[in-house]
Amino acid sequence: MKQSLVIVKVGGKIVEEPETLNRLLDDFKAIPGYKMLVHGGGRSATALASQLGIESKMVDGRRITDAETLKVVTMVYGGLVNKNIVAGLQAREINAIGLTGADCDVMRSDKRPVKDIDYGFVGDVKSVNAAFLQTLIEKDIVPVLAPITHDGNGQLLNTNADTIAGEAAKALARIFKITLIFCFEKPGVLLHEDDNNSVIPYISYYDFPCLVDDGTISGGMIPKIQNAFKALQSGVTSVLITSASSLDKLTGTTIAL
Amino acid sequence: MKQSLVIVKVGGKIVEEPETLNRLLDDFKAIPGYKMLVHGGGRSATALASQLGIESKMVDGRRITDAETLKVVTMVYGGLVNKNIVAGLQAREINAIGLTGADCDVMRSDKRPVKDIDYGFVGDVKSVNAAFLQTLIEKDIVPVLAPITHDGNGQLLNTNADTIAGEAAKALARIFKITLIFCFEKPGVLLHEDDNNSVIPYISYYDFPCLVDDGTISGGMIPKIQNAFKALQSGVTSVLITSASSLDKLTGTTIAL
Repeated sequence: MKQSLVIVKVGGKIVEEPETLNRLLDDFKAIPGYKMLVHGGGRSATALASQLGIESKMVDGRRITDAETLKVVTMVYGGLVNKNIVAGLQAREINAIGLTGADCDVMRSDKRPVKDIDYGFVGDVKSVNAAFLQTLIEKDIVPVLAPITHDGNGQLLNTNADTIAGEAAKALARIFKITLIFCFEKPGVLLHEDDNNSVIPYISYYDFPCLVDDGTISGGMIPKIQNAFKALQSGVTSVLITSASSLDKLTGTTIAL
Repeated sequence: MKQSLVIVKVGGKIVEEPETLNRLLDDFKAIPGYKMLVHGGGRSATALASQLGIESKMVDGRRITDAETLKVVTMVYGGLVNKNIVAGLQAREINAIGLTGADCDVMRSDKRPVKDIDYGFVGDVKSVNAAFLQTLIEKDIVPVLAPITHDGNGQLLNTNADTIAGEAAKALARIFKITLIFCFEKPGVLLHEDDNNSVIPYISYYDFPCLVDDGTISGGMIPKIQNAFKALQSGVTSVLITSASSLDKLTGTTIAL
């Protein structure tokens, strides 16, 4: 029987402020068994870029990554955010290790081809070193993945953290029974945008188109849920959309086929 | 019989410019057998700090590390420099992994006590996770250590890269036959400061005081060589002081007891 592995993806805001980060790490510690963390850090990246006089250009929530912006995200995601999370987990006696895709070739990607938009140094994941991650996890080491990959030719590439979490989950699904948790600001997918008590507990593959059609699900939540279905179709057992502050209870919206 | 392990410490300038970094990584690749890299990055840290309007205060070549400076060095050493080295090694088919002291608790330190000078968030190494480094090395994974440690309570600490290299060498000396190489700008310890052809091939524990007395060895080279003797006394087999561009030939100044 496969062992369970919980993969938690947390967005920028939560990991970038000491108070919310500490709360998150406490809740993360409470999750039993094998686990892994994937983080963002976009707000800090935008703040640092601004301090350095680099304009942050976003298209559909994706960062256009020129050479200078790549340096910024490598510093913020791979250095500042990642290492503070790792040190915080070590303080909680969780043996964490921070990794970008370049480290032990954990995640390799192709630079996104230029079509309508040139995203610059942005990577689309093409391979995951699941064997190495498995080795770590089975030694009770918790991988903490920063959203930076590499192309195998020495080029680092900025890569969406949701994608990193999804690709890691899919690659590890043949080894572990995976629960993939996406944490964001709200306690789940809401029936009424402004009512945190209106969490939809369960969204199936069949419900989804109706919920998009009637406008309940819109904007950035659509690709999130599409990614969740892709992960489930690739063998991930369960996907949960929730807020970091609900992580201890594991409530939220369960996505199911 | 112990297997050999070469530990190379490279200073800031070499790893911070693409051309010298590429040359270094080619030479590093040519070193046979087990190996490990320890890097600095001080110039980039100073440059970034300056761009952010943070003054870099140095005392005897050591950086006074306030909270803002700690963020800068965590970004530059742990992120930018470390991950570019790792990606560059991966491109050369060397399976590298970038690590700070926090990752898998590789190197733990105490915040330096305030005596005459308050160095701020600077760490003095107190333990090395040699077992984990051994596991990596014996899997042909090359650890790339950034000069950042942690205190076990969630605090990252800026730590001198020469010290990191020396402490790693000492901790691994009971497992491996260690050659510790310090790369700097000159091809070795010079008899005449401005003559790169005047490399002293061999400095013994008995020669050293005389060479200091007569002024041949001075300034920052004194603690470097003192550290080398400490490493040798702790079981390191051989210490070599050389330049990165002599790394392929392994010429330079050998320090011996």
